[in-house]
Amino acid sequence: MRWFALDRGSSLPLTRQIYGELSSQILGGELRAGERLPSTREAAGELGVSRNVVMEAYEQLAAEGFLLGISGAGTYVAEGSRLGFPSRRPPGPGAPAEPEPSRAPGREEGSRACAIDFRLGRPALDLVPYRAWARLECEARLGAPVEALGGAEPEGQPELREALQAYLWRRRGIDCRPEQIAISSGALQGLSTLASLVLEPGSPVLFEDPGHVLAREAFAARGAAILPIPVDEEGLRTELLPRDSRPALAFVTPSHQFPLGGCLSVQRRVALVEWAREAGCLLVEDDYESEFRYDVGPVSSLQRLDPENVAYVGTFSKVFFPAIRLGYLVLPERLVEGYLSRRRLADRYGAPPPQLAMARFIGEGRLDKHIARMRRIYRGRRDALVGALEAAFPGRARILGRATGLHVAVRFEGLAFGPPLIESIRRAGVILHPVEDYALVKGSHSGTVAMGYSHLEVEEIERGVAILAGIL
Amino acid sequence: MRWFALDRGSSLPLTRQIYGELSSQILGGELRAGERLPSTREAAGELGVSRNVVMEAYEQLAAEGFLLGISGAGTYVAEGSRLGFPSRRPPGPGAPAEPEPSRAPGREEGSRACAIDFRLGRPALDLVPYRAWARLECEARLGAPVEALGGAEPEGQPELREALQAYLWRRRGIDCRPEQIAISSGALQGLSTLASLVLEPGSPVLFEDPGHVLAREAFAARGAAILPIPVDEEGLRTELLPRDSRPALAFVTPSHQFPLGGCLSVQRRVALVEWAREAGCLLVEDDYESEFRYDVGPVSSLQRLDPENVAYVGTFSKVFFPAIRLGYLVLPERLVEGYLSRRRLADRYGAPPPQLAMARFIGEGRLDKHIARMRRIYRGRRDALVGALEAAFPGRARILGRATGLHVAVRFEGLAFGPPLIESIRRAGVILHPVEDYALVKGSHSGTVAMGYSHLEVEEIERGVAILAGIL
Repeated sequence: MRWFALDRGSSLPLTRQIYGELSSQILGGELRAGERLPSTREAAGELGVSRNVVMEAYEQLAAEGFLLGISGAGTYVAEGSRLGFPSRRPPGPGAPAEPEPSRAPGREEGSRACAIDFRLGRPALDLVPYRAWARLECEARLGAPVEALGGAEPEGQPELREALQAYLWRRRGIDCRPEQIAISSGALQGLSTLASLVLEPGSPVLFEDPGHVLAREAFAARGAAILPIPVDEEGLRTELLPRDSRPALAFVTPSHQFPLGGCLSVQRRVALVEWAREAGCLLVEDDYESEFRYDVGPVSSLQRLDPENVAYVGTFSKVFFPAIRLGYLVLPERLVEGYLSRRRLADRYGAPPPQLAMARFIGEGRLDKHIARMRRIYRGRRDALVGALEAAFPGRARILGRATGLHVAVRFEGLAFGPPLIESIRRAGVILHPVEDYALVKGSHSGTVAMGYSHLEVEEIERGVAILAGIL
Repeated sequence: MRWFALDRGSSLPLTRQIYGELSSQILGGELRAGERLPSTREAAGELGVSRNVVMEAYEQLAAEGFLLGISGAGTYVAEGSRLGFPSRRPPGPGAPAEPEPSRAPGREEGSRACAIDFRLGRPALDLVPYRAWARLECEARLGAPVEALGGAEPEGQPELREALQAYLWRRRGIDCRPEQIAISSGALQGLSTLASLVLEPGSPVLFEDPGHVLAREAFAARGAAILPIPVDEEGLRTELLPRDSRPALAFVTPSHQFPLGGCLSVQRRVALVEWAREAGCLLVEDDYESEFRYDVGPVSSLQRLDPENVAYVGTFSKVFFPAIRLGYLVLPERLVEGYLSRRRLADRYGAPPPQLAMARFIGEGRLDKHIARMRRIYRGRRDALVGALEAAFPGRARILGRATGLHVAVRFEGLAFGPPLIESIRRAGVILHPVEDYALVKGSHSGTVAMGYSHLEVEEIERGVAILAGIL
């Protein structure tokens, strides 16, 4: 046995240090099977520790099978405890490696400190009534009965499902039972879990093109074969729905096509739900920000047209804030049980307190109030963006999808937003998001960018457009 | 057009009621394409509302494409807005369906109010320092900077990953960088996400038999072909590891085999990691409750023997409480990036506040204190169970896996715990969990039950064993 030094300044107890060093010597082959260890008295003297400390380490090593015979005449290294491959040095005593400098929480990719980023789907975080919300959540947390610490159900808290039933009926014309509502940890989890239920490897999935990249990747990760269907200014081009193939699922954003902004007309909605029934294809309606409709009232959901074949996906990420991690699905009855069994396998269930707080927040009318307030503010920001664009680019910028949501799409005549142009705009202090970035089939939208306005002050919007006007 | 009544007591605005009724009549074909609607004046008179209310409803219907020409000489139903299949009646005005009576939060299946349930893996929830914890979480929530509401990273908060690095080094001999630690929403999410990265449909996955049912189902849901490997009292029988097939992944519980309780000896550990390297098989070590080790110190992790080929899975469900929804993985460097891209597609990221609170809870030594306290209490409960069983069944009950964790396995000589026996025990007020329930290959463990003691008072444990003694 090779003697070694103990680190008396370490947070690791001496017993654990002796254990670590001896087990490393055995695993590494320095101490061989059959070799006799020093007595606890001898080791204690050599290492300058009490016999108890050595005895504890030996007992631990024996319990794990490294050593034999510690209670008898001698202590020996057991057979078969040497690793047969060269390993990274097993940890001996000492401090753990220097931690990397921590990053600020909430850091987001693609945003620069000073740049005006017309990013999509970003609510105005500074206007979230966060302290009021945090208090509700704390109350929900402090008020939890002891049994609630033990677990919950995959469908989510009944209080929130009932609050959502009334909310969805009132706002979206959705008539469902609370049992059809499944709370998720954000909309993407709902999509991903639903995909795991409905899709087999290779299942065709119909997807709007351009469309929601992360959702598309989530379906692809479940083995989907993505079939892109082009969209125009009115949304999905239903005349291009395939007549010969039978997709398992179609993902659509009828209220405000992401990212082009079109609102699907009732004629296309009817064509879509009829086609889907015929094709045996489940429709998944992602209704991500329809609460913000500025010029007329909210357009009804697609779900309303065929509750038995449309799964409706909603989220609190846009109406409230993304890090809340709360979304929900309204499922056709036939899918409820299967969906919940999949959710159970994905992560069992979500933490109850935010759900209970949101149930109260909705029930007390505070979410409606927040939405009404934000709708006014977002409308002002939209008007500022549209006005600035029309003034800066008269007749040259066509603005799509202005009626709803947190962004518009802007088509510039005769321009192509390739990487060099985007980069020079970025250097001037504006971050733009080309619609081509969201397209699977490239080349049809090179003159169009999507511009989110919800998180920007009017002054920033105007300054951003002025910078654009200077470049384009 | 068929006239209809408005419900003035409804929470639904009158405009929305008119909209709902007219759109239903159009979708259902009662109002046909080309049909002229009454003027707003006429409709207002008929329905007893102001013209504005009707005008708003018409505008909404026109915006969605149901109606044409509302600003001109007459208002007509548009083509193509009739559903071609009989649908559930679309919702008209009226109250939503009566909600079902809500269930109590935290309801758990399989437990009866008065029965003594020797369930597995259940911490003593009444001893969780919950108010102190809730305060920490509330502080983390109230202290969040505005940008933190916008999002976070899939790997979790850096504060918790750094706290875990030190914790894992100290307790489990794990030497890793914080970048290898990925926070998950419970251990199962980590497993499920890892499976989605490593497995193809049909990939063979080696699984302890008997073993953790939900984890097995999560792997199967990802397309795994489960290969059961028998376990004995010392854990996985490594001499039965397949020499001819190359599983993609092997799921093991070396600290305290679930549910038989064996602790894998160092000889088997060495055999396992060497075999896995040879076979190109990723080892997944589920270390679900190794913090509770009563007779000697904690056995080192398998991860320590081969950090490049063992993914270590940990959870706060047992050391703290299940509804906290916090777990973590320590990943081999080569898997980190792929894993995080999968986590992003599963649900993007977990809510930061519980992570920040846990970082403080660990950093201030409070988790260690809680674990030390619970270890004393659980040891007392284990001693009570073992003592009561040995007194009630002298020489007839063999107790396995007593050294660690929250349960033991008990083998009764000459007994078989089939459904009739389990049911008659249940009727006497005791719920027992046969090991056969966890087995894929049935028939090898019919005389063995797993008995969790952590959540039961000594008095309950003794009463439960007395009831058993009366029946067996």
